[in-house]
Amino acid sequence: MRMYDLIMKKRNGGALRREEIEDMISEYTAGRIPDYQMAAMMMAIYFRGMNPEETVALTMAMAHSGDMMDLSKIEGVKVDKHSTGGVGDKTSIALAPMVAACGVKIAKMSGRGLGHTGGTIDKLESFAGFTTGIDSARFVRQVNEVGVAIMGQTADIAPADKKLYALRDVTATVDNMSLIASSIMSKKLASGADAIVLDVKTGSGAFMKTEEDSFALAREMVTLGNMAGRKTIAVVSDMDQPLGYAVGNALEVQEAVETLRGRGPEDFTELCKTLGTYMLIAGGAAADGQEARRKLDRAIEDGSALRKLAEFVEAQGGDPETVYDTSLLPQAEIVEEIISAREGYVTKIDCEEIGICSLLLGGGRETKESEIDLSVGLVLRKKAGDYVAAGEPLATVYANDRQKLGIVKERFLNACHLGDSAPSRKPLIKGVVRE
Amino acid sequence: MRMYDLIMKKRNGGALRREEIEDMISEYTAGRIPDYQMAAMMMAIYFRGMNPEETVALTMAMAHSGDMMDLSKIEGVKVDKHSTGGVGDKTSIALAPMVAACGVKIAKMSGRGLGHTGGTIDKLESFAGFTTGIDSARFVRQVNEVGVAIMGQTADIAPADKKLYALRDVTATVDNMSLIASSIMSKKLASGADAIVLDVKTGSGAFMKTEEDSFALAREMVTLGNMAGRKTIAVVSDMDQPLGYAVGNALEVQEAVETLRGRGPEDFTELCKTLGTYMLIAGGAAADGQEARRKLDRAIEDGSALRKLAEFVEAQGGDPETVYDTSLLPQAEIVEEIISAREGYVTKIDCEEIGICSLLLGGGRETKESEIDLSVGLVLRKKAGDYVAAGEPLATVYANDRQKLGIVKERFLNACHLGDSAPSRKPLIKGVVRE
Repeated sequence: MRMYDLIMKKRNGGALRREEIEDMISEYTAGRIPDYQMAAMMMAIYFRGMNPEETVALTMAMAHSGDMMDLSKIEGVKVDKHSTGGVGDKTSIALAPMVAACGVKIAKMSGRGLGHTGGTIDKLESFAGFTTGIDSARFVRQVNEVGVAIMGQTADIAPADKKLYALRDVTATVDNMSLIASSIMSKKLASGADAIVLDVKTGSGAFMKTEEDSFALAREMVTLGNMAGRKTIAVVSDMDQPLGYAVGNALEVQEAVETLRGRGPEDFTELCKTLGTYMLIAGGAAADGQEARRKLDRAIEDGSALRKLAEFVEAQGGDPETVYDTSLLPQAEIVEEIISAREGYVTKIDCEEIGICSLLLGGGRETKESEIDLSVGLVLRKKAGDYVAAGEPLATVYANDRQKLGIVKERFLNACHLGDSAPSRKPLIKGVVRE
Repeated sequence: MRMYDLIMKKRNGGALRREEIEDMISEYTAGRIPDYQMAAMMMAIYFRGMNPEETVALTMAMAHSGDMMDLSKIEGVKVDKHSTGGVGDKTSIALAPMVAACGVKIAKMSGRGLGHTGGTIDKLESFAGFTTGIDSARFVRQVNEVGVAIMGQTADIAPADKKLYALRDVTATVDNMSLIASSIMSKKLASGADAIVLDVKTGSGAFMKTEEDSFALAREMVTLGNMAGRKTIAVVSDMDQPLGYAVGNALEVQEAVETLRGRGPEDFTELCKTLGTYMLIAGGAAADGQEARRKLDRAIEDGSALRKLAEFVEAQGGDPETVYDTSLLPQAEIVEEIISAREGYVTKIDCEEIGICSLLLGGGRETKESEIDLSVGLVLRKKAGDYVAAGEPLATVYANDRQKLGIVKERFLNACHLGDSAPSRKPLIKGVVRE
């Protein structure tokens, strides 16, 4: 195989054979194909696309480029969950204990966030002492004993994807459906779960802005998962405004805890229960949606989901008390409200701008090296469709820096649009994609 | 300027602004833009193309990336000539002295060949002692005194093009019309001539296989040259079979000498006179085609063109005697004929295969480091349209290795197609492109 010939073939609209893709990925991972040739290949793929066979081959090649997690020592069906990411997305923190409390094993790998707020791992570190730096033996033991464990993604999980993604990120070749799908799924497949529930976000705050693209990505990933022998299902959900009210690491943890107490935001609770339903069915803990819902409702009502969170946090070195007393979470020094100057209906909250507000306060990473301030962020007081009177607060800002606070207040007001009549409410769940 | 943004812009079909292209080229030349980003950009350009303004900007930026030759110390109009390359293309060796003998100054930079036979420089080195490693002061002096000089292309002429071409060569991004045109023209513009006559080859042995593509490339280059203030004209000529009869370095020199004696092959002589006509007009030595033709004919008849070649060879350190006695050129040890087993008409001679035969005999470079054997090659005895009797020779092979000879004989017979009726003759000159 000569990489030049493969680039030429793809450039001219040909399809790469499975062995060609396998060779290409193993040679690239080993450093024997230079970045400049792979960059040309990625751009050619951007324009020519990949057929389903090529996408499967790429996904499997990347999944097998490093360690394949062996979860066979965990009894029962292991379920993983993945979100394509959005603003205020604290889903895993509430969902994992909910589902585990219903008897389904959650063995999840997570990454740190590079973006508006931290990733799930960063958020969980709001619990003092919490660590995801656990080895796979401890990971397996914890899933067996507690029913849920989240570990940081090791360097040996799909290293080809890691190298390739870093290259795509600087060569404007990220946003190709097949490449996105294979990147996500290669990691999921290598992580070893039997079933995968995907939360594909759609809207202004999501990677995929249109429902059409989001459903296409969902279909591509579901196909990949099922072809690799993992039961895979995708829920497409709204990300046109932040999920729930809280945006910021510790603030989101607090909201997740409130949700496990049955006092969470309506949209966020609904999303957790929808995803949880499919996870319970996939995990064999419920025969149908109705039974799954009932179990999830009960896990919240009887406190077992909240206790599961505490157990999980404690098992990974965190302080379980914080689950019952969220005032122990990192607290920002400055708490101020953003007041509406006029009355009206919130017609639109520019989702990405809210994310940037959190980032500007210190809640996210601008570069890989950035330190995150876990305490800062925003809590919306109104969401799209809500009425606000003049002088009423639109949001509360949690900051540690007055200058940043000032910038964020102004930015927030520009991102929050008011109108004279209520906009029509849009459904949170756009649809479900299965085999 | 962020390179990422430029890649994205081009990828999405946008046009790069002049300053963006200038920055990109200067930063890339300075090593501040990595190859992988430029490779992605080149592939995006392959798919999206460049508009005329972008192509001009790229050409000028590359031309100005190193030294711009100053030929102002040469009196009169300086004319350059460039061929897009083909098999048996010894044009410069006969054409330059012909035109110089008619009073037009030829200041030409040439490259070494990487391909079937050597480049013009390699061929000229068949004259013992000949060197193109002369500095620009000597170059200018020689053009003034002798009327013609050819120097090797220095590293400082369009270094951006050199670096970019090397990258395109390994990333399957060579064959884009705008990139080819800007690569050629950036070097021509930096070389400093006032007028440029381009010989664009078309056919199976040319870079551009179809007339449509060849004319498109010709138009693009003529536009670029004229926009840069150089009088530029392009002749599109046939390369469906080798030019003339000789393929191989010293063999081609001998054929060029024969042509200057008025005994050259019909097609090659015609091409030299056609290109020469435009060079004489551009150089102000003839008012029209008729006058130019008359002057060129006379330069051959009266021996002044041949004497000019001897003068030129001597000025650059070569042995002028060889011009008058070509038996002094490097001679191969083995000379054998390839005999036709059947009678018929030559319907087609696969041009690239003949080039490969010369390469296999040792007449070309497989890698940059290869040493060329100047003595080897082939001389066709029949060309397309000619009748051959059974037992008559199709070609003569000049070799220094019996094994290579055997391989080449077999390959040649497969490349030379015979039929029962004469094919229609195709014109050598396909057309002329001017402003």
